[in-house]
Amino acid sequence: SCALGSENEQRKREMRDSGFDVFLGIGDDGAVWEDIAGVKVLTTDTLVDGVHFTLNHFEWRDLGWKTLAVNLSDLAAMGAIPLCSVVTLGLTADIPVNGLLDMYQGMGEISDQYGGVIIGGDIVRSEVFFVTVAMHGRALGSNKVLTRNSAKPGDKIAVTGHIGCSSAGLHSLTETSEVNDTDGIQHLRNTHFRPKPRISEGQLLLNHGVKAAMDISDGLVGDLMKLCQTSGVGAVVRAMDVPVDLYLKKSYPDECLNFALNGGEDYELLFTASPEITQKLLRTKDINFSIIGDIVSETSKVRVIDERGREIEMAKTGWDHFALDE
Amino acid sequence: SCALGSENEQRKREMRDSGFDVFLGIGDDGAVWEDIAGVKVLTTDTLVDGVHFTLNHFEWRDLGWKTLAVNLSDLAAMGAIPLCSVVTLGLTADIPVNGLLDMYQGMGEISDQYGGVIIGGDIVRSEVFFVTVAMHGRALGSNKVLTRNSAKPGDKIAVTGHIGCSSAGLHSLTETSEVNDTDGIQHLRNTHFRPKPRISEGQLLLNHGVKAAMDISDGLVGDLMKLCQTSGVGAVVRAMDVPVDLYLKKSYPDECLNFALNGGEDYELLFTASPEITQKLLRTKDINFSIIGDIVSETSKVRVIDERGREIEMAKTGWDHFALDE
Repeated sequence: SCALGSENEQRKREMRDSGFDVFLGIGDDGAVWEDIAGVKVLTTDTLVDGVHFTLNHFEWRDLGWKTLAVNLSDLAAMGAIPLCSVVTLGLTADIPVNGLLDMYQGMGEISDQYGGVIIGGDIVRSEVFFVTVAMHGRALGSNKVLTRNSAKPGDKIAVTGHIGCSSAGLHSLTETSEVNDTDGIQHLRNTHFRPKPRISEGQLLLNHGVKAAMDISDGLVGDLMKLCQTSGVGAVVRAMDVPVDLYLKKSYPDECLNFALNGGEDYELLFTASPEITQKLLRTKDINFSIIGDIVSETSKVRVIDERGREIEMAKTGWDHFALDE
Repeated sequence: SCALGSENEQRKREMRDSGFDVFLGIGDDGAVWEDIAGVKVLTTDTLVDGVHFTLNHFEWRDLGWKTLAVNLSDLAAMGAIPLCSVVTLGLTADIPVNGLLDMYQGMGEISDQYGGVIIGGDIVRSEVFFVTVAMHGRALGSNKVLTRNSAKPGDKIAVTGHIGCSSAGLHSLTETSEVNDTDGIQHLRNTHFRPKPRISEGQLLLNHGVKAAMDISDGLVGDLMKLCQTSGVGAVVRAMDVPVDLYLKKSYPDECLNFALNGGEDYELLFTASPEITQKLLRTKDINFSIIGDIVSETSKVRVIDERGREIEMAKTGWDHFALDE
C-alpha cells in the first residue's frame, strides 16, 4: 500500500515469526507493534521553520511545548501512554543558544503535565531550522489502540473540546487589521501556541469501547475524510453541532464556522462510536465532547449540512499549516 | 549534565518507579531503557542535503542505504538488534518522486541485510531536503549494551575493519585532479556511499564481555576522545597499528594515515577491553579487528605515537562531515 512495497511487508512477516508483530503501520497516527511486554507505539512529527511555525510569532518555550504536543497528540489519538522520546534539532548558524534552552524548558513543562521523558537525540547543521521528535509509547492492556480504519456505518461522529481556535489564533497573528477582543484573541493564540494533547481522553475513549479515532491536525473536514477513506465509509456532519468556541465566535463571528470546519492544529480528538457507546460516554461526564454527525456507508464522501439539511459547499483544499502566510 | 536539566532527571526517576527504567540517555549512541520485556534502545540520526551529503554525488538508492546505515550503526555500537524505524522526509518542491522510490529501495536493501523494518514516518515541506530516521532496537539478554562510559585504564583499544576509506572516497569526489587507480577509488567511494553497519560484530563483542564501544562517525581520534572523556580516561594510539585499507594506501600514499586517523563516516566500531578479552576475541577469528593502542589513566588526552614512540601532532579540528566542500 505504500512506496516501500511488498518487500517491506515480507520483512514484517518475518519479524512476526520471531515475536515482533507489527499490526498497524504507515497511514495511521503512529506505528504499533506487540511483543511479550505488550502493545507499543512509535510516532514521529516534525516542525519546520517557515512551514509549521515562524520564530516571528513563536516564543521559544511555546515552540518546545508544541513540538512535543504534536507527537503526544499522535499517541493520544491511539489511546496510548507516552514513555520516551528522542529530539533531533536541525540548527542554522543564527539560532541562539538561549532560545534552545528556553525551548527545552517548554518541552519540560508539557512533559510534566502529560508524561514522557526525553532520553536522547541528535543535533545537525541545516540551512533551515527544524525540530523532529520521535516518541515511543505503550498502549493500554488488552484494548490495544484506537485506529483510523475502524469507523462503521451507523457510528456517531464526535469531537472533543472546541475546534477552530488554533487556526483563528494564527490568522490573528498575520492579519493587519485591529482585533478588538483582546482576551479572546489571547485565548485563540494560546491554543495555537500551546495545544493540549488529549492523552487522558484517548485512554478514556479506549476504555469505553471506542475503536476509531484520530487527532485533528489538518482540519475537521479534511481529517474526517482521511478517516472515512481509511475505514471505507462516508460521513454527514451537521454544521450547527460543530463545537465552536465562544471566544472564537465573538472574535470572528463571520468566519468562525470556517475556522472550525477547515482550520488545523487544534489537536482535538475526532472519534466515531456506536450510539450506545456515545450515550454512555455522555453520561460519564469525564470527557468533554460533542456529537457532530453520522458515519454512512457512502464511501469516502464527507458532506456538511446546515440546519435545514442542505449541503454546505466546502473549499477544495484543506488546512495547509502555514498557507495563510504564503 | 545537559540542557534538559534536573527536571528531566526527576521525570526519569518517576518513570523508573513505574517500571520504565532509563539507564542510559543523552550522550551515548542511543538511549536505553529496561522494561519487563527486556532492554530497549531508541536512536535517531539525520542526513541533511548540503551538510551530510549532496545529490550531486549520491545515487538515490545509496542515500536510502546510508540513512538507515548511520542509525543501524548506532545500534551496532551498543550491541543491539534492530527492530523497527520511522522515517521523516523533509522535502523541497524539486525532489523527484522517482528519486524517493529509489531511496526506499536502498532502504529495503540494507534492511534485508541487517534487519529491522520501516513501520511509519512523516513527510513535511522544507526549504532544505533532509531525512531523519528514528530506530528502535532491543539489546541482547542479560549483557545489556555496550556503552561509551566504561573504558578502563589497562584496556586495549581496538577497531573493526579498516578506517579512512569513506573520507578518502568523499575526497576523491571533490578533487579536480585525475586519480589513477579506478578500482581503488570505486572501493573508497562505495565505503562512503554504502557503509556496512557492524551489527553482528557489536553483538559478538557484547557476548565476549566487551563493555565499551562506539561507532566511528566523526573520525578515530575525535571519537576516541569522546569515549575517553565519557569514561574519564585517556588513550595512546600507535599510528602504525591503525588498520589502513590497501586500496586507500595505493590511492593516497601520502594522506592515507590522515584519512584513517581523522576521516569520518567509516562506521567501524571502536572498542576497548581487557588484554584477556581482546586475546580471546583474536582467537575466535569471528570478527575482523585490530588492536591499535592502550587506555591510560591520564584523563581526556588522546596521544597518537609513531613507531619510535614520538607523539604525532594532530590538527585541532575533527571530521566535519562535509567540510571538504566548504
